[in-house]
Amino acid sequence: MDFQLNCPIPISEYPVITMAHGSGGVLSHQLIDKMFRPAFSNEQLDAGHDGAVLASGSGEMAFTTDSFVVKPIFFPGGNIGDLAVNGTVNDLACCGATPEYLSVGMILEEGLPMEDLWKIVLSMKEAAGKAGVSIVTGDTKVVDHGSGDQIFINTSGLGRVREGVRIDPSSCRPGDVIILSGYIGDHGVAIMSAREGLEFETGIESDSAPLNGLVDAILDASTGISVLRDPTRGGVATTLNEISRSSGVGMVLDEKAIPVRKEVQGACEILGLDPLYIANEGKLLVIVPESEAGRVLEAMQNHSMGTHAAIIGKLTGDHPSVVRMTTSIGSGRIIDMLTGEQLPRIC
Amino acid sequence: MDFQLNCPIPISEYPVITMAHGSGGVLSHQLIDKMFRPAFSNEQLDAGHDGAVLASGSGEMAFTTDSFVVKPIFFPGGNIGDLAVNGTVNDLACCGATPEYLSVGMILEEGLPMEDLWKIVLSMKEAAGKAGVSIVTGDTKVVDHGSGDQIFINTSGLGRVREGVRIDPSSCRPGDVIILSGYIGDHGVAIMSAREGLEFETGIESDSAPLNGLVDAILDASTGISVLRDPTRGGVATTLNEISRSSGVGMVLDEKAIPVRKEVQGACEILGLDPLYIANEGKLLVIVPESEAGRVLEAMQNHSMGTHAAIIGKLTGDHPSVVRMTTSIGSGRIIDMLTGEQLPRIC
Repeated sequence: MDFQLNCPIPISEYPVITMAHGSGGVLSHQLIDKMFRPAFSNEQLDAGHDGAVLASGSGEMAFTTDSFVVKPIFFPGGNIGDLAVNGTVNDLACCGATPEYLSVGMILEEGLPMEDLWKIVLSMKEAAGKAGVSIVTGDTKVVDHGSGDQIFINTSGLGRVREGVRIDPSSCRPGDVIILSGYIGDHGVAIMSAREGLEFETGIESDSAPLNGLVDAILDASTGISVLRDPTRGGVATTLNEISRSSGVGMVLDEKAIPVRKEVQGACEILGLDPLYIANEGKLLVIVPESEAGRVLEAMQNHSMGTHAAIIGKLTGDHPSVVRMTTSIGSGRIIDMLTGEQLPRIC
Repeated sequence: MDFQLNCPIPISEYPVITMAHGSGGVLSHQLIDKMFRPAFSNEQLDAGHDGAVLASGSGEMAFTTDSFVVKPIFFPGGNIGDLAVNGTVNDLACCGATPEYLSVGMILEEGLPMEDLWKIVLSMKEAAGKAGVSIVTGDTKVVDHGSGDQIFINTSGLGRVREGVRIDPSSCRPGDVIILSGYIGDHGVAIMSAREGLEFETGIESDSAPLNGLVDAILDASTGISVLRDPTRGGVATTLNEISRSSGVGMVLDEKAIPVRKEVQGACEILGLDPLYIANEGKLLVIVPESEAGRVLEAMQNHSMGTHAAIIGKLTGDHPSVVRMTTSIGSGRIIDMLTGEQLPRIC
């Protein structure tokens, strides 16, 4: 089937998604045969079965799922489509796995412009290509106008766990080092700026990107990595609390060491937000024994996704399961898990 | 963790889902730690990672995804929870695979009663137990009131393809026999009756059920099965059209042989529907060479899910890719794919 950049469904005839596109009948097939299958084309998807049949290899697999309900669906630096691909790619990478296959489940709201769907599909195609994954199976449902919000996307993913890699927070030890791959808060602030109409002032774009290349570089540099996590919903603060609680080890962060762009800091002040709690979609937290930290940091800084990587704290034997921070003015404070609903529908 | 039948989250304190339950913070964790993880408990899920790490075996795997947006979420014979588990189990079974692992992605609308969520979770647990699958990874998002419709559920699934099994419509041949596992239209009519307030009159329940046991019995009985398909959205008519088009073979159905309950036939007349186009959620279409049809039919009829199995038609060399039917009065008509939106949000 030919792949083309123009919307393959005639917009003049089908300007928006209708309930019939979700019926399983003729218009459902048109959507699949003209839009989804040519865009994502590969052997498994082209087979057109209820599911994809894949060769299994040896070793362990990682399996993960994520639904995306971000609002707005188009934002500076990306849209719900590439976000959905990158999010699941990153969850697999954080299991120490090489992402291989994705499924895509779309819930479309009646009235979604066909052009918007096509833009999203194109972004998914591009993001999958960048991350080196194949979209092998999918499903599309349509809900009546007012029962959804334009488009929700679920991506589930399969990857092969790298041999010898065992990502496990329970292997965290006091003295281990916490490395962050770059600037925090870009994604959340880009979304909030778009919602508040501030995007032209801040100029901040989402950091939505695949992390599997960076993870490969890290796992090539060290066999001692105990934790890889992408700090999405709830931000760096919530993710570190999760790790601290599940490992039973305390943490101390150094506020000065945490990379935050000046524009993000400024936008956070205007919006009343704390960058530590803001979602990121292309950042990585790594916990590694001190003896290997230098090598891992160097490997990260040499990768395009980790240029601004920094050591932001360490694990401690005292205050188990508590995350503390030494602030830029030298005082200490406890960093708790996110409470309430700071940033709804951020991913 | 203890598992209990009462809602494990105090209803008096948290009567409904709020935006904070989707924040990734404290209330998100409460939902996961108190409700989802104890209900679905297994080694992979309990590990609490971003994804599940699974042993891979030899041979081929099947991977599939399905989102469920059924309305109403509770209906005679089931609810969106067991439907979501059975739907994906059945897609895997129809790939000739033994279903093993499921992921669950929930999109909750702000205001969903906590009790309803708990009932749905319990149904998913029960359905997963019946089908012999483990729910190993999940994700939960919350959208603001009016941006969703109570609850949407995506399930993705992984299974192991049975050795030597090759489900492939292109191996269909003229003369092959079409077997249907039982009464059609129950699910769609149960949903429509519930929507129209007719459920007490019709007494019809959804047929939502796992098909993997029946599929095992069929694959034990014959190595010549070319197609296994569950006729969900679009019904038997649309599914047979899909098979006919992808195999390039014609089909002739015998209307008298197609099992339809009298109550379903009656409800269809009231609602202006054709049972052939109505969704089923626990029925199976099988295509098998004539020489093996007797053995397969017997194996199906001996299984509790196939008691009413019947040969409903055969594949023909003439009229390629067209499905025809000999009606009960002896005339012939063409059975086309579903057009339009006969039954929105049926699954």
